[in-house]
Amino acid sequence: MRIEIITIGDELLLGFTIDTNAAHLARELAAVGVEIVHRTTVGDRADDITRAVSEALDRTGAVVTTGGLGPTSDDLTKPTIASLFARRMILDETIVEAMKARWKTLKRTGPFPHSNYAQAMIPEGAVILVNRHGSAPGIWLDDDRSRWVAMLPGVPREMRGMLAEELLPLIVARAGAAGAAERATVIRSRTLRTTGVAESALADQLGDLARGVNGLELAFLPGVDGVDLRLTVRGLAAANADVALAAAVMKLRERAGRCVYGEESADLGEIVLDMCRRRSLHLAVAESCTGGMLGSRLTSVAGSSDVFLGGVIAYDNSVKRKWLGVSSDLLDEHGAVSEAVALAMARSAREGMGAEIAIAITGVAGPDGGTALKPVGMVWVAIDGRVAEARCLHLFGTREEVRLRATQAALDMVRRSLDTH
Amino acid sequence: MRIEIITIGDELLLGFTIDTNAAHLARELAAVGVEIVHRTTVGDRADDITRAVSEALDRTGAVVTTGGLGPTSDDLTKPTIASLFARRMILDETIVEAMKARWKTLKRTGPFPHSNYAQAMIPEGAVILVNRHGSAPGIWLDDDRSRWVAMLPGVPREMRGMLAEELLPLIVARAGAAGAAERATVIRSRTLRTTGVAESALADQLGDLARGVNGLELAFLPGVDGVDLRLTVRGLAAANADVALAAAVMKLRERAGRCVYGEESADLGEIVLDMCRRRSLHLAVAESCTGGMLGSRLTSVAGSSDVFLGGVIAYDNSVKRKWLGVSSDLLDEHGAVSEAVALAMARSAREGMGAEIAIAITGVAGPDGGTALKPVGMVWVAIDGRVAEARCLHLFGTREEVRLRATQAALDMVRRSLDTH
Repeated sequence: MRIEIITIGDELLLGFTIDTNAAHLARELAAVGVEIVHRTTVGDRADDITRAVSEALDRTGAVVTTGGLGPTSDDLTKPTIASLFARRMILDETIVEAMKARWKTLKRTGPFPHSNYAQAMIPEGAVILVNRHGSAPGIWLDDDRSRWVAMLPGVPREMRGMLAEELLPLIVARAGAAGAAERATVIRSRTLRTTGVAESALADQLGDLARGVNGLELAFLPGVDGVDLRLTVRGLAAANADVALAAAVMKLRERAGRCVYGEESADLGEIVLDMCRRRSLHLAVAESCTGGMLGSRLTSVAGSSDVFLGGVIAYDNSVKRKWLGVSSDLLDEHGAVSEAVALAMARSAREGMGAEIAIAITGVAGPDGGTALKPVGMVWVAIDGRVAEARCLHLFGTREEVRLRATQAALDMVRRSLDTH
Repeated sequence: MRIEIITIGDELLLGFTIDTNAAHLARELAAVGVEIVHRTTVGDRADDITRAVSEALDRTGAVVTTGGLGPTSDDLTKPTIASLFARRMILDETIVEAMKARWKTLKRTGPFPHSNYAQAMIPEGAVILVNRHGSAPGIWLDDDRSRWVAMLPGVPREMRGMLAEELLPLIVARAGAAGAAERATVIRSRTLRTTGVAESALADQLGDLARGVNGLELAFLPGVDGVDLRLTVRGLAAANADVALAAAVMKLRERAGRCVYGEESADLGEIVLDMCRRRSLHLAVAESCTGGMLGSRLTSVAGSSDVFLGGVIAYDNSVKRKWLGVSSDLLDEHGAVSEAVALAMARSAREGMGAEIAIAITGVAGPDGGTALKPVGMVWVAIDGRVAEARCLHLFGTREEVRLRATQAALDMVRRSLDTH
């Protein structure tokens, strides 16, 4: 099955917004064996939308659009494609009721906005794609030659939810019900996540595997969390693709060793929380330059409350002294960015919060505040638990990147320390 | 002048790479008054490239492509478009010499790779766009009906450099030689950032302006920070465009009122820090469900240290009791997610940290832990300063979105409270 994607919106065409929806759609569709052969972006103009959709229908007969489903006047997708399919727009009462219910549950004040009714107008004979993540419903429209257009919202969160819950099942069914997944060849990939090692050092460590594993493409994807290794297989049936990937992943894991902390979109915070949970350990934090980023990262994981107790954001030295009992002498002698202060912050947080492990971060995030002895990017990370240890990091990047790298490195210190016992 | 962009590459079509080139091209071209009317992405297949380029030439006669200029076998852009223009490919000695020189300066070891000769093959009669940032040169090709295609590399750094140094001057000249900058019309936009109001309610509040201001397009861009309002002007000379935007912005600000907190990419955290700095106020935080997100957001702003002192991440109730002195009675009577506890957290943080204002957040981020009385998304935000006030929010979205919206709402409470005195 071959599909075209049309992303709609002036903000995309003018370059105000980078189009992430198209990439997400392509990956999700490829994963079920659907090939994207052509992608188009047009602005919020009826004639441009009409021409793009009809050209796409002539080429493949299967089109997914994003954008232009909202309540405002620049949202033209539904009426435009309806008239291309020669359908009247009709008010769907079920959508109105759903939106009114949602309005109530969100405890929005004031009367139900009249502009919402525009979102309840749908082309005659359309299938409604339920939006559980926002108010604008999606639309699936067939013509008599079994050509179809599926319209999704442009807000990424809403588009992703609707794609997974509503559209993908429809497309898989359309692609030939059961068995299609087996028959079709797919493009699949698996990703190993590494941290604490530079891209070039990792490449050296991988040796010949750096150029590919068992004939599978290997891509190095460096980011603030570390270097991801993505293996990709093409042109095999789903089952064979998975087997080939599994073998390559095993080989790659052996060579990469301890720097691998997970696969796909694994989050090191979640992994550390699980390791602590299995060992009945509780976590606390004491943050200076990261200002709460580590705590925020840990609590972004649902269910973190049985492991993570809390922490102190000791940004100003007065807070380090008063709330973490770091002595003025220690601060004067070593400075706030030092092994001694990092260790003191961690110990105090662990004892004060009644945790078994505490993590402390203190450093120079920049862009200002660096000195010859303590340059921007210098960060001390300490953990206090069964043992107390501290590491000095020299991180690069913007202020925010230094903070993100420090947070990841702190979590990795806990992972490695727990790995060993 | 109207132009189409065609980005070429399997990695774009498969969604492995997010297409940032298209957005950059659109912004740069719009700035010199060139309008992008259509954007296409195709894979590394000759027939797809041919069809996309000829369709685009039929529509506008002016096309910029990116990608497929490299030395490898999947780089098909030049030969494919050459045959579409019925041109032979010929070896360009100047390019060979340039690449050999570059090879030396980069101190590359080994012999000059033969695959590089592919990059020196250009269509007969083509104009070469010099690449000072990589090895693959760009190409400008005219046909006898003065329709043209400009081919840029896909590597963003190389594409951006070649666009600025080689292609934009050619296009400006093409658009009308000297004085073009004055005569040419531009596409410009300004964005007002609003928060604390739903898109549909904001549309109602704006009334007739929701459909456009003084004839300028108005786009509604909802996100976790609120709803951005983007005004766009087209078809005016630069100076007139700015005047028209200024007038429309003023009109829109009047109608939108207090929900407007800034323009363009303004960050509410930075705005609140500035408001406190001007009033010599210091900030502290006490965070439960956001777990440090508010502190992290404030400290992401360089120079926040003269306003932000720190805070307590009181995730577990034991920390609320021991570190913020929230009494067990209060917690038992009202629960952790309550006005009373939010106010107590804020007061204790302000007094304990020696701040003039403290912000407290406690809520149900979800996905679990909701009850009939305290559903997921219910968040209490309190500020304690000259006055103490608390607000109950009912937020939607994922766990992370609820936390982001709560953080933004807490900052907005401070903004509005400081606005009034």
